[in-house]
Amino acid sequence: MWKKTNSKVVENMDHKKNMLEIVKSRHLRVGVVGLGYVGLPLAVEFAQNDVCVLAFDTAKERVAKINSGENYISDVNTERLTELVQTKKLSATSDFKELGSCNAIFICVPTPLDKFRKPDMSFIEEACIAIGKNIKKGTFISLESTTYPTTTEDFVLPIIEKESGLKEGIDFWLAYSPERVDPGNKAFSTKNTPKVLGALSSDGLIIGKSIYQLAVDEVHTVSSPRIAEMVKILENTYRLVNISLINELALLAGKMDINIWEVIEAAATKPFGFQAFYPGPGVGGHCIPLDPFYLEHIAKKFNFDLSMIHTAGHIDLLMAHRMTVKITSALNRHKKAINGSKILFLGVAYKSDINDERESPALKIMEEVLKKGGNVKYHDPFISKIETQQGHVLNSVDLDKERLKLADCVVITTNHSVFDADFIEEHAQLIVDLRNMIKEASDKVYKL
Amino acid sequence: MWKKTNSKVVENMDHKKNMLEIVKSRHLRVGVVGLGYVGLPLAVEFAQNDVCVLAFDTAKERVAKINSGENYISDVNTERLTELVQTKKLSATSDFKELGSCNAIFICVPTPLDKFRKPDMSFIEEACIAIGKNIKKGTFISLESTTYPTTTEDFVLPIIEKESGLKEGIDFWLAYSPERVDPGNKAFSTKNTPKVLGALSSDGLIIGKSIYQLAVDEVHTVSSPRIAEMVKILENTYRLVNISLINELALLAGKMDINIWEVIEAAATKPFGFQAFYPGPGVGGHCIPLDPFYLEHIAKKFNFDLSMIHTAGHIDLLMAHRMTVKITSALNRHKKAINGSKILFLGVAYKSDINDERESPALKIMEEVLKKGGNVKYHDPFISKIETQQGHVLNSVDLDKERLKLADCVVITTNHSVFDADFIEEHAQLIVDLRNMIKEASDKVYKL
Repeated sequence: MWKKTNSKVVENMDHKKNMLEIVKSRHLRVGVVGLGYVGLPLAVEFAQNDVCVLAFDTAKERVAKINSGENYISDVNTERLTELVQTKKLSATSDFKELGSCNAIFICVPTPLDKFRKPDMSFIEEACIAIGKNIKKGTFISLESTTYPTTTEDFVLPIIEKESGLKEGIDFWLAYSPERVDPGNKAFSTKNTPKVLGALSSDGLIIGKSIYQLAVDEVHTVSSPRIAEMVKILENTYRLVNISLINELALLAGKMDINIWEVIEAAATKPFGFQAFYPGPGVGGHCIPLDPFYLEHIAKKFNFDLSMIHTAGHIDLLMAHRMTVKITSALNRHKKAINGSKILFLGVAYKSDINDERESPALKIMEEVLKKGGNVKYHDPFISKIETQQGHVLNSVDLDKERLKLADCVVITTNHSVFDADFIEEHAQLIVDLRNMIKEASDKVYKL
Repeated sequence: MWKKTNSKVVENMDHKKNMLEIVKSRHLRVGVVGLGYVGLPLAVEFAQNDVCVLAFDTAKERVAKINSGENYISDVNTERLTELVQTKKLSATSDFKELGSCNAIFICVPTPLDKFRKPDMSFIEEACIAIGKNIKKGTFISLESTTYPTTTEDFVLPIIEKESGLKEGIDFWLAYSPERVDPGNKAFSTKNTPKVLGALSSDGLIIGKSIYQLAVDEVHTVSSPRIAEMVKILENTYRLVNISLINELALLAGKMDINIWEVIEAAATKPFGFQAFYPGPGVGGHCIPLDPFYLEHIAKKFNFDLSMIHTAGHIDLLMAHRMTVKITSALNRHKKAINGSKILFLGVAYKSDINDERESPALKIMEEVLKKGGNVKYHDPFISKIETQQGHVLNSVDLDKERLKLADCVVITTNHSVFDADFIEEHAQLIVDLRNMIKEASDKVYKL
């Protein structure tokens, strides 16, 4: 397919020129590896902009769903997805050999922390091996998975070069562009959130920018992949640190008879130099509880101690226990212990109005309450079944007057907007509100 | 002057009604205690709005300056001040007996930390004693000095009640409203920065709001003084924590060959959930290095450990030393030691374009360099003379080619906008830039 020449530089020039022409005409095929909350919206955005997309996932159910036009990510518009599949702009496969047919490949696989809170790089590694084994010359590759700075250069590059026998900057281009997806955010989606991009070579940067511009409004280029990797870590470290700060201040405020929510509301009137964060039972989801610890991991290699991240992580680690103490204190007012009491949790999602309970603090509190002998039930309109880390499986119960009355304590763990605070307050015996859903504390309402 | 009745409640009602009428007609006399960067702008703002202001300060030079229409605070417009003095809207005195002629008194005195980093309450105490000894019935009193939550209730109230023999809520009203002055801020001044106000009584809140509204655009009321006290601490704790976070990340980034300034610029393209902070040699001024430690002080009373503030404070405490290490490393490139080298510091103000060197990190670095035998000079267009904590007195030198060439190392400690980065880079032998004034690092330019 590619013109052979004696000079690598000339060949490279041809690849670049050829690629820019393909991009201009939109006659390229984009491969997206990993069809979760990052990959699927990106695939849809490219397809929506008249680019042919082939989406890859090892999970056969996901592939089957996509190919039948069925949506499973709440940020994706179902009608749009169905139409793109019907018009053949978007299709999915588990056959990674098909990567060889793609001009540009986006890696959107997870990077979880393992049980010892070290980065689990196996998903990125597998994706890179598959890409290395199958790519053709002249392919642009971008890693979107959040990871520690230096990953693209020191981890991804050697694997792809080894598996493909090709040379970056000559035969293919490698870049890093962090996903900034905020599930449930109605104002900012993949399309209108500026994309940061750092490539290993200047050609890669030009090509990558031209490709991303097919799908997103604004591309902000930086001078290296490690800068782009650090950007994402900074964004989420900022959030972890500020959430932990306000959680710690909330705990002190409770002791000082100060309503921290009223304090934050007033501080937010400052028109400069302040951004409001709100307390809660701890951070959850796939980003904030994880990303800062990728940096902590690589910092060790540089003999560097990240004391702010460590302290913030320490506060967060103790939040579930501290919230259990609040439940104990509330029940104590009614001369009850957790052991044998009926505790009803409202909301298990890690934040409001989404159907994702990964790393959710609600699960950790439920587990501790279960361990102490509590009779635990939960209601979440978005999540019908959960399994805690210790393997307890629970199904969401209906929420009605009787259910609220029966509970010795109702714990508000997620502030889904469908919850009716007045209804809950009217019928519950005792409430521990960790989300400021009920504005006034009282004998019945115990607030964080 | 006040109508006597048998009933305290009726008397109180009369005071309140009377006060609201006085405020409405602007026939009140406002007393401002403390004529620094908070008190003077507030005094000017009231006077500017047709309210007669009597300003109090123990420093006779300040009083004399005001009375001759001379300005000494850069945020205050000199012409405006002169005119207000000439038209007798504003005058100053050191005679605290005159407090008895004021309807409303604003306490704007400093609350420094003492040498053991404990709050020094002596200025507030002296002001309260003077107020207690002199006020008349029906006076509104507001504390604006930043301090730990509970100060108004537990420290100010007992002093004023004891000294005056009057009762709060009946004979006078006490409130807390934090100053939010940001020296050098061109967009937000006393007038257009919303004012948070918490009073001990509901009458005090109504009266206080009506008075503040004579001078400021927006008053945000909260339910107690301690909420208002906590607001200010939260605002500045947020800043200390985020500056320390970015300083720590900058130090790691340096080791990882990552330009932290480029990272921040890229992260700032995120349109939600992020606020950019920039690294530097440490925090300075009268607020950020102090306010969080007022909270740490009172937290001890509640057996509470503020780990985030502690960690942020620890990072900041080490910054001057770490910056000295950077100077040492830079000089080492030229096979020089600090001992015997000529080190020229550019900027000693704690932030750009202001004439205030209180708690400035530049002074701390200069002191450490002096201790190590460095030959220290400085240039600051706004500050002609400084004294370090150890008592070294230095005068600002002129900045020219020769001065730059002569220095073994030029350290950029404050990014005053008048500094010409190109000129400095052209003529200096070696530069340690702690403020991102010179965009590209090089053999000659060592960046934080």
